[in-house]
Amino acid sequence: MNIKVLDTTLRDGEQTPGVSLNPSEKLRIALKLDEIGVDFIEAGSAITSEGERDCIKTITNENLNAEILSFSRPLNKDIDYCIECGVDAVNLVVPTSDLHIFQKLNTTKEELIEMSNSAVEYCKDHGLVVELSAEDASRTDVDFLRTVFNNAIDCGADRVCVCDTVGIFTPDASFNMFNSLRDLKVPVSCHCHNDFGLAVANTLAAIKGGSSEFHSTVNGIGERAGNTSFEETVVSINSLLPDFDTSIDIHELYSISKLVARLTGVYIQPNKAIVGENAFAHESGIHSDGIIKNASTYEPITPELVGRKRKFVIGKHMGTHGLNSRLKELGLNVNSNQLQQICDNIKFLADNGKTVTDVDLQAIADNVLNINYEDRIKLEEVTIVSGNKVLPTASIKLTIDGNDVLEAGVGIGPVDAAINAVKKSISEFADIELVEYHVDAITGGTDAFIDVIVKLQKGDQIISARGTEPDIINASVKAYIAGVNRLIS
Amino acid sequence: MNIKVLDTTLRDGEQTPGVSLNPSEKLRIALKLDEIGVDFIEAGSAITSEGERDCIKTITNENLNAEILSFSRPLNKDIDYCIECGVDAVNLVVPTSDLHIFQKLNTTKEELIEMSNSAVEYCKDHGLVVELSAEDASRTDVDFLRTVFNNAIDCGADRVCVCDTVGIFTPDASFNMFNSLRDLKVPVSCHCHNDFGLAVANTLAAIKGGSSEFHSTVNGIGERAGNTSFEETVVSINSLLPDFDTSIDIHELYSISKLVARLTGVYIQPNKAIVGENAFAHESGIHSDGIIKNASTYEPITPELVGRKRKFVIGKHMGTHGLNSRLKELGLNVNSNQLQQICDNIKFLADNGKTVTDVDLQAIADNVLNINYEDRIKLEEVTIVSGNKVLPTASIKLTIDGNDVLEAGVGIGPVDAAINAVKKSISEFADIELVEYHVDAITGGTDAFIDVIVKLQKGDQIISARGTEPDIINASVKAYIAGVNRLIS
Repeated sequence: MNIKVLDTTLRDGEQTPGVSLNPSEKLRIALKLDEIGVDFIEAGSAITSEGERDCIKTITNENLNAEILSFSRPLNKDIDYCIECGVDAVNLVVPTSDLHIFQKLNTTKEELIEMSNSAVEYCKDHGLVVELSAEDASRTDVDFLRTVFNNAIDCGADRVCVCDTVGIFTPDASFNMFNSLRDLKVPVSCHCHNDFGLAVANTLAAIKGGSSEFHSTVNGIGERAGNTSFEETVVSINSLLPDFDTSIDIHELYSISKLVARLTGVYIQPNKAIVGENAFAHESGIHSDGIIKNASTYEPITPELVGRKRKFVIGKHMGTHGLNSRLKELGLNVNSNQLQQICDNIKFLADNGKTVTDVDLQAIADNVLNINYEDRIKLEEVTIVSGNKVLPTASIKLTIDGNDVLEAGVGIGPVDAAINAVKKSISEFADIELVEYHVDAITGGTDAFIDVIVKLQKGDQIISARGTEPDIINASVKAYIAGVNRLIS
Repeated sequence: MNIKVLDTTLRDGEQTPGVSLNPSEKLRIALKLDEIGVDFIEAGSAITSEGERDCIKTITNENLNAEILSFSRPLNKDIDYCIECGVDAVNLVVPTSDLHIFQKLNTTKEELIEMSNSAVEYCKDHGLVVELSAEDASRTDVDFLRTVFNNAIDCGADRVCVCDTVGIFTPDASFNMFNSLRDLKVPVSCHCHNDFGLAVANTLAAIKGGSSEFHSTVNGIGERAGNTSFEETVVSINSLLPDFDTSIDIHELYSISKLVARLTGVYIQPNKAIVGENAFAHESGIHSDGIIKNASTYEPITPELVGRKRKFVIGKHMGTHGLNSRLKELGLNVNSNQLQQICDNIKFLADNGKTVTDVDLQAIADNVLNINYEDRIKLEEVTIVSGNKVLPTASIKLTIDGNDVLEAGVGIGPVDAAINAVKKSISEFADIELVEYHVDAITGGTDAFIDVIVKLQKGDQIISARGTEPDIINASVKAYIAGVNRLIS
């Protein structure tokens, strides 16, 4: 059975505290959601602001395949703004629990039903598709919920949705609720929150219970602990629920996750399922050994299924099998004695709490193999002067193949000045281009170590290099020069 | 029923690619785990390295209340290392699926059982408590699993554990597996991975199915997508499973989460359940309004339950109710016209994709209220000199209440030097502390604008301030001084 997907990254997702997307950012996400096969896109909440309405209009103007919705309260002024934005449908949200009706809205159940019915009719009179979402449905008496839904359906609602607004469903409770609503005459949708880490499981249980649509956000972003994670649910349906599927192009999940993380600024923890940086990374010896023999020993799905690649990480838990395959990737063939020696040296480094990079590995391997590998470019000295009344200026002293090179550069800031000075001093390798400059988010103190990663390109070859220092300028220069050395070696 | 907790942050958790803890870091985590009531602590894997054994010994020397385990393969050399470390118990991991037995170990089922039995006997001969973990049990025929377990129990195993090694359990499958093992004569434990985002749900289902112990890691760290999240499971048992409880001091969950994040360097996404920065943050107008009327409308548990505080965030989705309560916190009383004007101005800022800090809010409010607010501290000049052979040094010229103040500072990098110089120059406000320094990820070129957000504390009051410049040093100094000005105004 095909399960429909309503994506609410642009509404619930954007409600993540601190997140705000402009129209062109919202449009980029909407285009990608449409491209990968999302059925319904909730583009925003038209009542929010002038800018929000501009965002929604930019999306409705594109005539996408997906149905475009706006969030709306059951109020004519909200619905009028939805109509102004040219949406196909509204997600009409009506609170149904006693707590929300009596304490938040300060109204009665009878008045609530009247308000809901009249809003549905108003929408239908204006040609809108209506999904009626019962807010806090998981804390609502199921008979009252059925009454609200049946009223709405009689007034023309096209779909209804059970919202677990504060994430208190367990999978059993979710299954039971949806199973008891199987008699409703329209599709029943499921909207879960992740306050206890159960949103995906509750959504899968809802589907087993009879729900034919689910709401989710890319990376599970949203208010508080966020919403059902789009990518986890889509992959779970694909791999764990044999009787169900979706129309999503599953190979694009990593790519849309990265897009949303970049545009919202909400970073993903490395151990996030499916899309986290480590989701297909292996360090421990037992795991790497198993993966090399048969990847399914330690991977439930192939990384390629979701548009990713496997990676082996060098570190203290690593065994010789994983290490050997990493060395081979770097073009180094070693015998078993040498392999053990390299392994021991790495563990010594890691025991002291160091992350082991490719560059560390290469240096250790070179040492064990007695390869006297020499960098052609060496950094001798970098000095910068900067401030609010000083033109950021850097001087640099390098040796290139043993010859001193001195240069200076200015820039918009001290990092820019330093990199400009480096670029000028290696102008003989002018075909090398900086394609990406990245610094991870810095949190902690002003003395935190800063990890700069650069991507450099020479012809077809792209390599990444890193510099880690408490000083962002030194880290940037180190990373840049390390990368150039690898490209010209 | 009391459910036992085995914490494997120091073993499975440390296997997170790139993570390596030294003995004093491992000890700090172990002490905290013991303090908050964890029953069993898996301190590491003794075979891994000399450094790892030092870590484990440091912990076993403390005579904690918790049982201390080491991971071990069913090999005498592994077990000997465990004995050397003085652990109370071993987590003896025996692969049981056909895939692991035939393809990873290249052995037979009969040999596997023999290996397992003999390892259990060897452990018992040396006075160790044995938990026998069946690796990849979720892909193992349940009859064979029962055979392995019953053999081990006959040899003296004290507990057995079902491992969902690649995270492919659904809650239903987990419940059924544990339910069918209810007849075993020793406690059955549950070890889940989070590859589909279902680890917590599968663990809760296991408990309902008869499991009396679960394995987890703080923040859910671990290989790939990580393990069952300790804090999510403990709170779920507390709040969603009325027939079960644990001995964990639930108020300490946030504090241990922060400790583990800091020592491992594995950051948590803001929308992580229970412990993420946003788990109890509210921005949208509807939610803030509800929270003010009755917090349970939009919070399933109180933040205080897990050692946290609620926060309201200023942004585009905010309504006037939440805004008014934030303004009152800042000591500003406004009428309804002024409130609407401030709200509109903030939404205009947010529509352009800007995060709204307290200082932005205050500036907008000052403007609307016609307060001619003057900064007491003004930045006149900042100059820094730095480089790889230069001690990072900053000079600063401020005016404080119209008087010139000159200072200089050094630091581990130029930002640190500049902030140290600022701190020295405003030493009369020495009770102000920098509690957080944050720079968003920088991607693009070396000339990108950099957004620095600082959080400063004075007594009970915490405020956030921002500096945005292409120069990270100027941005940091600006943000810091803006924050101090607000705190002393």
